[in-house]
Amino acid sequence: MINGIPTAELIVEAHKRIEPFVHRTPVLTSQSLNDLTGAELFFKCENMQRGGAFKARGAFNASLSLKPEERANGIATHSSGNHATALSLAGKTLGVPAFVVMPSNSKKIKVASVNAFGGKITFCEPNLKAREDTLAQVISSTGASFIPPYDDYRIICGQATSAKELIEDVPGLQAIIAPVGGGGLLSGTALSSRYFGNNITVFAAEPAGADDAWRSMREGAIIPSVNPNTIADGLLTSLGRRNFPIIREFVKEIITVDDSDIVSAMRLIWERLKIIVEPSSATVLAAVIKAPHSFAGKKTGLIISGGNVDLSETALWFNS
Amino acid sequence: MINGIPTAELIVEAHKRIEPFVHRTPVLTSQSLNDLTGAELFFKCENMQRGGAFKARGAFNASLSLKPEERANGIATHSSGNHATALSLAGKTLGVPAFVVMPSNSKKIKVASVNAFGGKITFCEPNLKAREDTLAQVISSTGASFIPPYDDYRIICGQATSAKELIEDVPGLQAIIAPVGGGGLLSGTALSSRYFGNNITVFAAEPAGADDAWRSMREGAIIPSVNPNTIADGLLTSLGRRNFPIIREFVKEIITVDDSDIVSAMRLIWERLKIIVEPSSATVLAAVIKAPHSFAGKKTGLIISGGNVDLSETALWFNS
Repeated sequence: MINGIPTAELIVEAHKRIEPFVHRTPVLTSQSLNDLTGAELFFKCENMQRGGAFKARGAFNASLSLKPEERANGIATHSSGNHATALSLAGKTLGVPAFVVMPSNSKKIKVASVNAFGGKITFCEPNLKAREDTLAQVISSTGASFIPPYDDYRIICGQATSAKELIEDVPGLQAIIAPVGGGGLLSGTALSSRYFGNNITVFAAEPAGADDAWRSMREGAIIPSVNPNTIADGLLTSLGRRNFPIIREFVKEIITVDDSDIVSAMRLIWERLKIIVEPSSATVLAAVIKAPHSFAGKKTGLIISGGNVDLSETALWFNS
Repeated sequence: MINGIPTAELIVEAHKRIEPFVHRTPVLTSQSLNDLTGAELFFKCENMQRGGAFKARGAFNASLSLKPEERANGIATHSSGNHATALSLAGKTLGVPAFVVMPSNSKKIKVASVNAFGGKITFCEPNLKAREDTLAQVISSTGASFIPPYDDYRIICGQATSAKELIEDVPGLQAIIAPVGGGGLLSGTALSSRYFGNNITVFAAEPAGADDAWRSMREGAIIPSVNPNTIADGLLTSLGRRNFPIIREFVKEIITVDDSDIVSAMRLIWERLKIIVEPSSATVLAAVIKAPHSFAGKKTGLIISGGNVDLSETALWFNS
């Protein structure tokens, strides 16, 4: 760590630590999407990561960074989404209990995937105070270690490994774009671009209905996310205090996109790349389509963050 | 060619010929699907091939095998499905016209993808005689070369390159399974398994509602497909006369699966692998689930043949 910025060595170590447990995800290309955008696009498919999202990288790195005697008491978090699944997967894989506090209004499919990986769920009222209080109780009674979803250097270094792989697999990458919610993936992506790339410009994509990161960049201070309203349900949270300084320093621009653009981009990805991505992931292609001048003619990496959707619900998206 | 069987050299040459024009498609794995089946599964993702199906391999190999002066007059076929798209893609890529005779009841999405690649469509009545007659007229007036969908050694060698790549990428593969319709993909898969694998057992998956290949194997002669009825719309045709002898010699067993099994397997693939596959492709996982004794404990390759579906229609499949 140098001035609150993880070093390249920490990311290299994280990568070695998690490699036996996570997929090196494929990178896909599409001539028709290149033609559409005027850029040369490389999609890094974290939707095919274990647990269906990049979150497994950070969850494994943080869990494996614990001392064995700490880890033995279990790992714990509060989350309604992919981090809950990732932590349950890490717990199952490493043979330790994973305690997950989930709001009572969590989606069925998220609860089911935590259960599938043997996560021990405690439900609570759907507000931040109840989540934190309940988590504190769980930790107090079990001795489990808290693994935060994004505001944590072990998490940032874990999430950074996705961009590191992409940069290794696509020589000459000139631009890279990742979605931003709490900023774990984006801050890691920015660091790997800086350390392992050659002059890569880093962008972020954010839903217009949850544009707290865009506003935070403009204000130079973290603006909390209040009443976010977007289909991209993985991008609702406020920026973490460890994530923001990295993002402010190394990310050139945050591009906001409307939900209708997100759905259109999602359909393009499903149809052209034949992969299932969740709305949060589609923000990156939506941003490239919205701001073509920033990417035209450039080898551009897009981090596809996850693919956990309830297929029963998707009919609503594609009825047109 | 030796006794009507393409040699290993022909497949190696086909692979070199098409490599600049097609994707080396990724191979995906899923721990949860391994746990479910008791086998170690490797999914070869031809749904991510150019044009959304393995068909591009054969179409490019056949088109590139023509003399330049032949090719200049164009390439032609009759098809309502993925072969039409693949031939249009090859024509566009190689800068020659692609003439496609399509039955008037072809699905909108197939017509749209042929149009997207600039294929020149002639519609005809939806029966084999009309298709053949119309194609003969098109060829007579244009001088284009006929590229059949499966009953052709250039096509067989092209389709064989998918299994060749899978065998190269997964050392120690013990079993491999491909869907069977006309038999182009299956005969190629069987040949590559024989030539490039080490004692790989080859299986096929076929819809019970279009089980002409299963019956042909039992009878030792090609039994035509009559009034097939299955959701797997890529597997309706009868076996080709060049394909059947290869299949009879090198394929151990054809496993038939019901449409309900196909839909269940398709949902598993969408949800666990996060990829879009068409019903024909899901037959292979359905077969592994139906006949677990044949695959238990074995490193098993599954050829995922394509991913061209109309998303507007998929709600019907996943409403439960």
